[in-house]
Amino acid sequence: MSNSPSELRWRNRTNLLRHLHLHGPATRATLTTHLRLNRSTIKALVDELATDGLVVERLPDGRERPGRPSPLVIPQPDALVVLSVDIRVDEVVVGLMGINGRVFTRRRWDLRSGWPVEHVLVDIAEYARLLIGESTRPICGVGVAVPGIVRLDDGIVHDAPNLHWNDVALREWFENELRLPVDLGNDAELGALAESTRGVARGAHDVAYVFVDVGVGGGVISRGASLLGTRSHVGEFGHMVVRTGGRECYCGCEGCWETEIGRAALARALNLPENCGREEVAAGMRALLQEPVAVRRALGEVTEWLAVGVCNLVNLLGSDLVVLGGLLAELPAEVVALVEETVQRRSIVSRAVCGVRVEQSSLGQDGPLVGAAEMAFQRALSAPRAAFAGTKRRNPAASLHVESSPVRSR
Amino acid sequence: MSNSPSELRWRNRTNLLRHLHLHGPATRATLTTHLRLNRSTIKALVDELATDGLVVERLPDGRERPGRPSPLVIPQPDALVVLSVDIRVDEVVVGLMGINGRVFTRRRWDLRSGWPVEHVLVDIAEYARLLIGESTRPICGVGVAVPGIVRLDDGIVHDAPNLHWNDVALREWFENELRLPVDLGNDAELGALAESTRGVARGAHDVAYVFVDVGVGGGVISRGASLLGTRSHVGEFGHMVVRTGGRECYCGCEGCWETEIGRAALARALNLPENCGREEVAAGMRALLQEPVAVRRALGEVTEWLAVGVCNLVNLLGSDLVVLGGLLAELPAEVVALVEETVQRRSIVSRAVCGVRVEQSSLGQDGPLVGAAEMAFQRALSAPRAAFAGTKRRNPAASLHVESSPVRSR
Repeated sequence: MSNSPSELRWRNRTNLLRHLHLHGPATRATLTTHLRLNRSTIKALVDELATDGLVVERLPDGRERPGRPSPLVIPQPDALVVLSVDIRVDEVVVGLMGINGRVFTRRRWDLRSGWPVEHVLVDIAEYARLLIGESTRPICGVGVAVPGIVRLDDGIVHDAPNLHWNDVALREWFENELRLPVDLGNDAELGALAESTRGVARGAHDVAYVFVDVGVGGGVISRGASLLGTRSHVGEFGHMVVRTGGRECYCGCEGCWETEIGRAALARALNLPENCGREEVAAGMRALLQEPVAVRRALGEVTEWLAVGVCNLVNLLGSDLVVLGGLLAELPAEVVALVEETVQRRSIVSRAVCGVRVEQSSLGQDGPLVGAAEMAFQRALSAPRAAFAGTKRRNPAASLHVESSPVRSR
Repeated sequence: MSNSPSELRWRNRTNLLRHLHLHGPATRATLTTHLRLNRSTIKALVDELATDGLVVERLPDGRERPGRPSPLVIPQPDALVVLSVDIRVDEVVVGLMGINGRVFTRRRWDLRSGWPVEHVLVDIAEYARLLIGESTRPICGVGVAVPGIVRLDDGIVHDAPNLHWNDVALREWFENELRLPVDLGNDAELGALAESTRGVARGAHDVAYVFVDVGVGGGVISRGASLLGTRSHVGEFGHMVVRTGGRECYCGCEGCWETEIGRAALARALNLPENCGREEVAAGMRALLQEPVAVRRALGEVTEWLAVGVCNLVNLLGSDLVVLGGLLAELPAEVVALVEETVQRRSIVSRAVCGVRVEQSSLGQDGPLVGAAEMAFQRALSAPRAAFAGTKRRNPAASLHVESSPVRSR
């Protein structure tokens, strides 16, 4: 990290913008306190952001306190927009999101099983170009969530088993297609980021996030920041072995968490076909809501394996909050309470920190989409100044045909 | 983080000192490159450190390259010393360590089983005062490693089960006794810090460290920095449940990793009494070295459970290096190779990052002692300037009697 005055100034600007993005409008006085900068520095930075159209200033309505009121600095959602893509196992969701988390546009469509990766990506790119072209707002980046193992250094989807994708150079391909900076992340990890910035884990320091759809993924927030592995993301929670001699998993192990609490396991517990859709499983769980006895009978075993895995996570990671996302957000509240009670009783770390909370996600299925947008914002908000100026010009140039194959030859 | 010029200057000085502490002597030119500061800033900082006696400058011996040689900046081990304490289940080690990792003094003594916590601490404090009083060098801090769950916010040992310690206000007590800043950490976590600063994990970004003595502990280095939980340390690896329906653990669970690979499990595998000492187990493993068949027969089951746990760690944490410390550093090399091969084959994350390495600790039993010193240095090197000036004066003032009980009344 270099420390020249201009870089210092840019870092302060970035911190200010990030604060407004995450916390919404704030008075200059609040910003002075939170960012630990003096008033004249804050004024200069706010003036600069106002000139760039990123904020407006307004005197607050109420005049409860005597003295000169501190102007309210209001971020302008329109001023900085990212494109967010959530590729799921059986559908795609694409949206435009503005600063401070405002959603402008959003569309979802089904993904046909076995549809080749090239076709899926061409569809996404076409729709993305449409959105970008129509937008009157500058798009400053793209975030993409993928249900698989993503290598951070080269932006390659190494393995998305439920999509049957291997070694897809997704970042490079989208960057070529859309002529915008693209960031790529694992869906569950981005879900964790979303919960910690705009969901139930907001303000929590150490969070383990479990996301159940077809597979089981996870993300970790440690001391308020996403935990990242070296080349891969962290949190293949689904492939923690929890049950000795349990069912065979496609990964080659037996008794993985995924085989015990994934969508197929939930479907089995509810007497539904193993390959049924997300909505059927969710509906099956909702149908149990009025019948406590049926809940225990149907979900008793899933509850036990959920508790075993959550207990391991808490003991290993020292989390003080565990967030259950995806299909787990549909679990009856009493199952969640039972898991929390079991973990508090069994986990030696929970006993040391006086109780770990287990909560259901407040963003539900939207976690990865919101998280992908946040990831793109993280880059955009700290981008060098030139990037802001350039965004409007650079968007529509992307060509309409596929220039190269995203699939690596091996 | 405030950014005033004086704080910026202090941060630069801290970074420079830390670089010399971790990497040893360096030319001013190297420091300029590594710290990304300009030559005049480096010169001013080095001059300041030389005035404070923390470094000396010397022209390098060789004159291989033409031009004016860049002076070599050499940290002075004597100039900044910390006291390091490693409390183990059956012994205590106390040492003095200087800047750049030089060990000056070191002593160990046995800990009688069941010896009350007050007596253990009084013994340590007495010996520590002796060392501090005799030292001609300023002691700037104390680091203490404990085999248990340490709460970082209040410096309390919440639970050290193998010592039968509960809620011991160790940091406060030592601070009162020694009149020095005291930092407290879990032994395995400090072992991880030691491996990453001075051991086999030096330079590695994402490390899981497993430390086996009576219990099984762990530490995580994520992107080059220690991973910390909120109030507790992370890494109660020993209480990850790996074996469904396995042996009962004192923590209340069954089949914890600790019951499968801890010292008692190793002793059972070697046909030794479960409560035998560290040296007996280590000797038992060394005796196997020449007999590959006996290794497989004796340690086959331990190897399997070791692999299951390591595989879970890699899948959850995305580590690219797993370091086996404590008694695991005595394992025959073929067992380690087998664990590595198994993890590379089974772990979906290892396959994604093209192989995870499993290596034995290079610091052996010394990990926690070295790590405790590093923890104390982390604070000392970033302490405000006044702390350096004051250290010499403040040392010998500590009183000789126990002023308060370290055990919390509950």
